[in-house]
Amino acid sequence: MDRYLIISSDCHAGLPPERYRDYVDPQYQELFDAALPIQIERTQEAERKFLIADVNAAWRKGREQDLSGAWDSDQRLRVLDADGIVAEVIFPDGITEMNMPPFGAGLSLPTEEIVPELQWAGARAHNRWISEFCQMAPERRAGVAIVPALWDVDEAVRETRWARERGLRSILIPNYWGKHDAYHHPKYDPLWAVCQDLEMVINFHSGAAPMSDYADHQGMMGIYISEVAWWTARPLSFLIWGGVFERFPRLKVAVTEGTSIWVPELLSLLDFRYADTPYSAKLGDYRSHLKRTPSEYFHRNVFLGASCMPRRESEMRYEIGLGNIMWGSDYPHPEGAWPETATQLHETFDGLPDSELTAMLGGNAIDVYGFDRDALTTLADRIGPEKHTFSPTAS
Amino acid sequence: MDRYLIISSDCHAGLPPERYRDYVDPQYQELFDAALPIQIERTQEAERKFLIADVNAAWRKGREQDLSGAWDSDQRLRVLDADGIVAEVIFPDGITEMNMPPFGAGLSLPTEEIVPELQWAGARAHNRWISEFCQMAPERRAGVAIVPALWDVDEAVRETRWARERGLRSILIPNYWGKHDAYHHPKYDPLWAVCQDLEMVINFHSGAAPMSDYADHQGMMGIYISEVAWWTARPLSFLIWGGVFERFPRLKVAVTEGTSIWVPELLSLLDFRYADTPYSAKLGDYRSHLKRTPSEYFHRNVFLGASCMPRRESEMRYEIGLGNIMWGSDYPHPEGAWPETATQLHETFDGLPDSELTAMLGGNAIDVYGFDRDALTTLADRIGPEKHTFSPTAS
Repeated sequence: MDRYLIISSDCHAGLPPERYRDYVDPQYQELFDAALPIQIERTQEAERKFLIADVNAAWRKGREQDLSGAWDSDQRLRVLDADGIVAEVIFPDGITEMNMPPFGAGLSLPTEEIVPELQWAGARAHNRWISEFCQMAPERRAGVAIVPALWDVDEAVRETRWARERGLRSILIPNYWGKHDAYHHPKYDPLWAVCQDLEMVINFHSGAAPMSDYADHQGMMGIYISEVAWWTARPLSFLIWGGVFERFPRLKVAVTEGTSIWVPELLSLLDFRYADTPYSAKLGDYRSHLKRTPSEYFHRNVFLGASCMPRRESEMRYEIGLGNIMWGSDYPHPEGAWPETATQLHETFDGLPDSELTAMLGGNAIDVYGFDRDALTTLADRIGPEKHTFSPTAS
Repeated sequence: MDRYLIISSDCHAGLPPERYRDYVDPQYQELFDAALPIQIERTQEAERKFLIADVNAAWRKGREQDLSGAWDSDQRLRVLDADGIVAEVIFPDGITEMNMPPFGAGLSLPTEEIVPELQWAGARAHNRWISEFCQMAPERRAGVAIVPALWDVDEAVRETRWARERGLRSILIPNYWGKHDAYHHPKYDPLWAVCQDLEMVINFHSGAAPMSDYADHQGMMGIYISEVAWWTARPLSFLIWGGVFERFPRLKVAVTEGTSIWVPELLSLLDFRYADTPYSAKLGDYRSHLKRTPSEYFHRNVFLGASCMPRRESEMRYEIGLGNIMWGSDYPHPEGAWPETATQLHETFDGLPDSELTAMLGGNAIDVYGFDRDALTTLADRIGPEKHTFSPTAS
């Protein structure tokens, strides 16, 4: 094979807000109509507040047709073909703030100022649509079902089963739980069990953080973007120490768009804490239920949606875990690789061994999300980037 | 000088609980009497819960006299002399859980399940005692005043002035603010101003974290000890992005017993976020009020109380900041260097250049906390460890 099979482990899709109406359960449609203008107004208000309306408008100008791939299947296939990407994992929030599911069911799944029942209704509306959307190109699309798992684990289990039946491959659960139970609580075990049984990947995606801490003071956005990766990966510590990967050894968790730079240091820290030291002795027994070291669980059960992965992370690939990294483009978000994907790929990966590129660019994602390798290979032979452009010795 | 001048930037002292009564304002003494048995019972309960009563008892056995240095000035001087330490920064919570100030005014300054007025009363009781305690050996003791700054900034300013008048050199404020305002809120400016004017170091000390997140499930202590350093250093991001070091360029902040391993990665992250990138563009202006990079503020304004610093951190000293590291022994805590201080110092520092050891072991702490170098030099000439034992070439 002369071309790389590239999968983006982090893409986004969503309907224009008003078009979610058809996917909302009938009993919520009246509320949907009332909430829609408020949601749109809030979005515009946030754009003005952060002075980003102009930045967004400038970036989008002339790309309107390409960006409509956020909800238009044919446009999306055209854009991905041109980008050399054969398949993708699809999260909500298409063009960032413009295509969010209704009722606070967007990527960040807030825990405050929302009504759980409505967030669930919004999640189900999106899940119905994304499952249809994925069926339009099933071998190329692994859709992510939104599962606001904090409020009701039974409901989360039901929705996960429903999603699997409709062909979705994974679920998104909140990485920020606010005042709700964290993920070492045994109440979540039925959810981990169904995800393991049905081979549904559990995703945490960058976005949520304790916004009330940041309030509205100078520099708050600097604080947010300096912390947000930590909040994205925070559940890992709860899952590892809580013994979740001990009880559910085949569970797969992906941390997406949370950078990977922190992985070596986190694993070093967790393994150090797992070791027997004078400090640990005075804290009682918090380790005997774990048969493996934290880094062993990590490398077996945790994967990284490495959106727009920078060169530095590719150079750290052995410390991070060559089998754990799944490159992503973040299309159609403005901070993503698209439409400069080719340039970014070369910056990050030029000169690396062929087998390692094969794993990080697509092989790992095939294994994690269960894509059909043969079907995608045929497509990659046509649209994937040529291997020799990354390294003269690669064939 | 043939010996190192060693200052511990992290030691602890506190009275046996019942003896705080004499230092509590009269109007709180009745409540003190009612609360005392509850506090003692809770402490014992925690020991039982975490199965550490036996560990603590075994560690303490035969060391009772040395440990009484937690409140006995003469015993303390004897222990520190034997340890080769000429001076110390003294935080509350002497023998960990056995010498906490009353009313929840201990090291972790909880924000939940306490009455702010009482926490203040407990803090004042400790501050009165520690200021007396430091006056018994003023050149050797930099006492830290407890200032529960979250509830009332005016009161925090008054207590800081009071503490300075009584010879204390720094204040401890909560590193975990719960639902209260974080430190980028402009309401704290009067506190930063008085600390800058009076050269009072602001300390964050490891301990507090969102305990309610950890609840009581399996592995919770593993999660806690894996996160606690992050929670200790978290205020730095709020201070830096909030422009506090821009408005108060002479402010000094110390992060104590929070490890230092995270410093290079944090600074790299903050500086990256400060740089102009496609990602930052869509977030509006959160940078123009900062004239320096985050790492420049850090290296000018932030210092590390490097308790029981491991070899790996000493090898990272240039990336962490040679001028920012202040070694500490954590006496009399069981996880501290004492009574193996000499062994630990050699493990961490053998073979390093003399001038660098001089800075990390005491020189930096002299500058930060304003110790009297001449007085301490005389003492170090008598009790400090001999330089040639660390490196054959050091004189």
